[in-house]
Amino acid sequence: MLRIIFLLSLLFALSNASVQDFCVANLKRAETPAGYPCIRPIHVKASDFVFSLGTPGNTTNIISAAVTPGFVAQFPALNGLGISTARLDLAPKGVIPMHTHPGASEVLFVLDGSITAGFISSANSVYVQTLKPGQVMVFPQGLLHFQINAGKSAAVAFVTFSSASPGLQILDFALFANSLSTELVSATTFLDPKVIKTLKGVLGGTG
Amino acid sequence: MLRIIFLLSLLFALSNASVQDFCVANLKRAETPAGYPCIRPIHVKASDFVFSLGTPGNTTNIISAAVTPGFVAQFPALNGLGISTARLDLAPKGVIPMHTHPGASEVLFVLDGSITAGFISSANSVYVQTLKPGQVMVFPQGLLHFQINAGKSAAVAFVTFSSASPGLQILDFALFANSLSTELVSATTFLDPKVIKTLKGVLGGTG
Amino acid sequence: MLRIIFLLSLLFALSNASVQDFCVANLKRAETPAGYPCIRPIHVKASDFVFSLGTPGNTTNIISAAVTPGFVAQFPALNGLGISTARLDLAPKGVIPMHTHPGASEVLFVLDGSITAGFISSANSVYVQTLKPGQVMVFPQGLLHFQINAGKSAAVAFVTFSSASPGLQILDFALFANSLSTELVSATTFLDPKVIKTLKGVLGGTG
Amino acid sequence: MLRIIFLLSLLFALSNASVQDFCVANLKRAETPAGYPCIRPIHVKASDFVFSLGTPGNTTNIISAAVTPGFVAQFPALNGLGISTARLDLAPKGVIPMHTHPGASEVLFVLDGSITAGFISSANSVYVQTLKPGQVMVFPQGLLHFQINAGKSAAVAFVTFSSASPGLQILDFALFANSLSTELVSATTFLDPKVIKTLKGVLGGTG
Amino acid sequence: MLRIIFLLSLLFALSNASVQDFCVANLKRAETPAGYPCIRPIHVKASDFVFSLGTPGNTTNIISAAVTPGFVAQFPALNGLGISTARLDLAPKGVIPMHTHPGASEVLFVLDGSITAGFISSANSVYVQTLKPGQVMVFPQGLLHFQINAGKSAAVAFVTFSSASPGLQILDFALFANSLSTELVSATTFLDPKVIKTLKGVLGGTG
Amino acid sequence: MLRIIFLLSLLFALSNASVQDFCVANLKRAETPAGYPCIRPIHVKASDFVFSLGTPGNTTNIISAAVTPGFVAQFPALNGLGISTARLDLAPKGVIPMHTHPGASEVLFVLDGSITAGFISSANSVYVQTLKPGQVMVFPQGLLHFQINAGKSAAVAFVTFSSASPGLQILDFALFANSLSTELVSATTFLDPKVIKTLKGVLGGTG
Repeated sequence: MLRIIFLLSLLFALSNASVQDFCVANLKRAETPAGYPCIRPIHVKASDFVFSLGTPGNTTNIISAAVTPGFVAQFPALNGLGISTARLDLAPKGVIPMHTHPGASEVLFVLDGSITAGFISSANSVYVQTLKPGQVMVFPQGLLHFQINAGKSAAVAFVTFSSASPGLQILDFALFANSLSTELVSATTFLDPKVIKTLKGVLGGTG
Repeated sequence: MLRIIFLLSLLFALSNASVQDFCVANLKRAETPAGYPCIRPIHVKASDFVFSLGTPGNTTNIISAAVTPGFVAQFPALNGLGISTARLDLAPKGVIPMHTHPGASEVLFVLDGSITAGFISSANSVYVQTLKPGQVMVFPQGLLHFQINAGKSAAVAFVTFSSASPGLQILDFALFANSLSTELVSATTFLDPKVIKTLKGVLGGTG
Repeated sequence: MLRIIFLLSLLFALSNASVQDFCVANLKRAETPAGYPCIRPIHVKASDFVFSLGTPGNTTNIISAAVTPGFVAQFPALNGLGISTARLDLAPKGVIPMHTHPGASEVLFVLDGSITAGFISSANSVYVQTLKPGQVMVFPQGLLHFQINAGKSAAVAFVTFSSASPGLQILDFALFANSLSTELVSATTFLDPKVIKTLKGVLGGTG
Repeated sequence: MLRIIFLLSLLFALSNASVQDFCVANLKRAETPAGYPCIRPIHVKASDFVFSLGTPGNTTNIISAAVTPGFVAQFPALNGLGISTARLDLAPKGVIPMHTHPGASEVLFVLDGSITAGFISSANSVYVQTLKPGQVMVFPQGLLHFQINAGKSAAVAFVTFSSASPGLQILDFALFANSLSTELVSATTFLDPKVIKTLKGVLGGTG
Repeated sequence: MLRIIFLLSLLFALSNASVQDFCVANLKRAETPAGYPCIRPIHVKASDFVFSLGTPGNTTNIISAAVTPGFVAQFPALNGLGISTARLDLAPKGVIPMHTHPGASEVLFVLDGSITAGFISSANSVYVQTLKPGQVMVFPQGLLHFQINAGKSAAVAFVTFSSASPGLQILDFALFANSLSTELVSATTFLDPKVIKTLKGVLGGTG
Repeated sequence: MLRIIFLLSLLFALSNASVQDFCVANLKRAETPAGYPCIRPIHVKASDFVFSLGTPGNTTNIISAAVTPGFVAQFPALNGLGISTARLDLAPKGVIPMHTHPGASEVLFVLDGSITAGFISSANSVYVQTLKPGQVMVFPQGLLHFQINAGKSAAVAFVTFSSASPGLQILDFALFANSLSTELVSATTFLDPKVIKTLKGVLGGTG
């Protein structure tokens, strides 16, 4: 009995010394460059470390595809752990359009179907591969890349990133879905203003 | 035509300036604390960025389970990218025994079956959950954790780590599968020497 | 006199530009993944940078040993500086049981007595040495390690870590001093349920 | 005299202990994820720390602009120091087309002329400003951005990056100056194949 | 029309997932080791990313020179981006006295005039160069360095640092412009107490 | 028996996957910005992780003090682990003169005697304390600091740094023990040329 008391007091002392195995995000507080403030460990439950990517995204849209993110904003337990997740659903002919993640490298694991994926390096080299279930492809940080359904059935992939906040910049949205003027888009992409205005029309951009 | 020549010379100049989008490991060279030296970009092929985790591991063993790693040593394109992968196969009653990754947090995505997974924090709190296909669980860096088949059929999971070299220390192997003396194991774990000697016998340890 | 005025205005301007030489933790505020918010420099005193490890820990306990931590929670000036401290006291037969620091490497300096210390690598190699006063041993991040009094007199060591929050996971406490069920402990460690229940009894665990 | 000898021996001992203030790149050796191996300090000269961006780039090209990089490949003393440089020259109507730096944030300082610069965030917000000499603009890591001569005379800017190897991915080159097939470009950008083929013609792409 | 609606909902979903391209500092909140909390992206304007270094500093002072910092405290958009800026003005005979930046390497670009700049390594090697407009010099982190007008006209330089908070410790101010006692300064620098007291007089120090 | 075979094959597979728990430096190979290449784990012995600081340094010199470093150059097992060590010996009146560590924060633990230690912040604030055995003081990265024997007997301290290569720049050596010209030293420190020449004479400097 005395032994237990001695031990528990040791345990208590040491537990106090053991801080920040994890830092579940308090999303109501202002973010910092290293992530969100933590909620107190006493309020953290086992279920906070679980996130569901089991529900297929809705692919009834212009790209016949869906991205379901599990970044820190959706899955607060990732805060500070340098990793995050997402699910890709691609209906037949589905496309995850050309995009970058400014803050992370990406690993993609194909669950179902067949996916043609690729990225372009700073040196303009092209790295394209068609992947089957069980294959993994890695996309280095910040480079333009895409995924496209290469088969006739739905394709599903599970992806992870080397940051809790990888970011996601979709090229067409960046160019055509905001107020960046047609003149500036044309001058900086060499696209014809008419082409730009058409795509702005489709994507809801102005200017 | 002149325009193209002008442009290509610009392109050439800029391409030279663009270094190290990636650093595919030259595994024949000595590692550094930041990873392996890179192979020259000119020798890198698109297929270097692809790795297969499509083949189930062999689960006919004492743990009825298998870990198939896709760390930098197996998948050299991960070098320097801060991310790596593995596949877990758990036959019925299969167990990935208590272990840590000294250098990375882990995200686990359940593909098939049901898995009970858990980790223990520095404060000795226990975080255990039973996961279905499509569910993701995160295990913070360096903490003891485990996965166990919770169903009657085979379970499969895809895992990723926040490092190209996460490390893997399996508790039973660390304690019972090497030459650490029974006396030291007993003194530092409070396990009975007889218990230790029995497990050393099963796991091939000495001393 | 004018020179001084000119100079002081320069000094004032530059001082305003000089931020965050240090960030003494405000422990009352929520932590972030990079540490605690800082208290304002104007409230920082010279004595905030000093911490005492001069008092021996109480070794009248089951392990005949004591760890006195000087982590950020005890020594707030360490916040953000990537370093922390502790003192180990080992009475004769004292043991710091098998444990890990999930977030830091450790350097141990023997002050008095003789200590047998060791760690086990991911490859299950064993690195054990017996140390005299003045000797230093380094334990790489996240690996299982231990310290044990190798002599007949009290031993004392000063240790430092490569993080302000190294964490501390003691193996026996993680396995036997909480509510992790005997069934799960047995399945993931291959220890006999009876052995587990006995140790849970000693260490105050349940389940 | 003895004092000097004592002192010099101290100095010698300490100098040996003082390593890697800098790590001037040995560009002939294979790079690692953290940069190039260092040349030996004894071979480093003061002039290695100096680089010239004094010569205007040749703007007689399709974009009426030039980027003169001072990255680690051109300025080896930057190796490991987390910073690099470049000079931008924009003739009247000159444009640095839409591009990203996958590995660095950028600070631009306008020396001469007037420059309209902008970037687009992950949330598709547009941040555009017209800058005069002496003004600085910062472009966060990995986001699409551009610079365009906003005046009638030549414009010059000095830029720095938060990495010795920031990378440089020019959108039009990535899409139209390589072998990425027209079909894939069209599918992932929604641009008309005819538009793509025209730009591939101008920029030297195939497929 | 339906396409746009589908697309915008996709856009909305993805935008929510895209966090922290930047983190403009809220200077009213307490800093953390990684920087200040961010202001909400909705309150960030394009002009927040612009800072002016166009106005010459006032060089009518004892050093005939001025440093105009654009660190995070002056230019909050730099928060978390690992880069900052400053402008140096040196009247004829102007000197930026011996100083260090404890947290950053520095790149200096000469705009006008001629500057003799140098740094001293840990091994006490001296690296001094005289720079013309258009030349760049790099100063590795934490080492003593200086800049001095080498010509007969005013000199101007634009500098950047590899941190948003590089710090700035001016040697003479550290030694002679505060309350550090003459006795301690003398004991730790070998300077004669009389020399110290004279400089304390000039620089406003006490003790 | 079969079980053991199965297990050992599992063990073998996993061991291959477990890389770089540590990276003992191969000092014969060129350093990189992240440290030295590793020697192969098979050549690493337990004794590589031990270093002796048990022998007092020779204090018969101008400063009546000695620094015995245990940086990566002396203690190769520290390579990549972000920590290093040293021993300070201060005879009566001994002084570790004003210096900085450009790449690390420092923790000092007093073993014997009494030490007055202090540092000066970027804002020129002075933080001085007199320490007894068992007391710890932390010195933030890159700031000028010193230690001085405050008693009548020898003082000894054990110090650690938050880097395997902290660097060490001793102010007097940087100013007076090399070829930096008296003219430049005077211009950048406001010290009288006569004072400089005298100290250059004592410390072996030229120019």
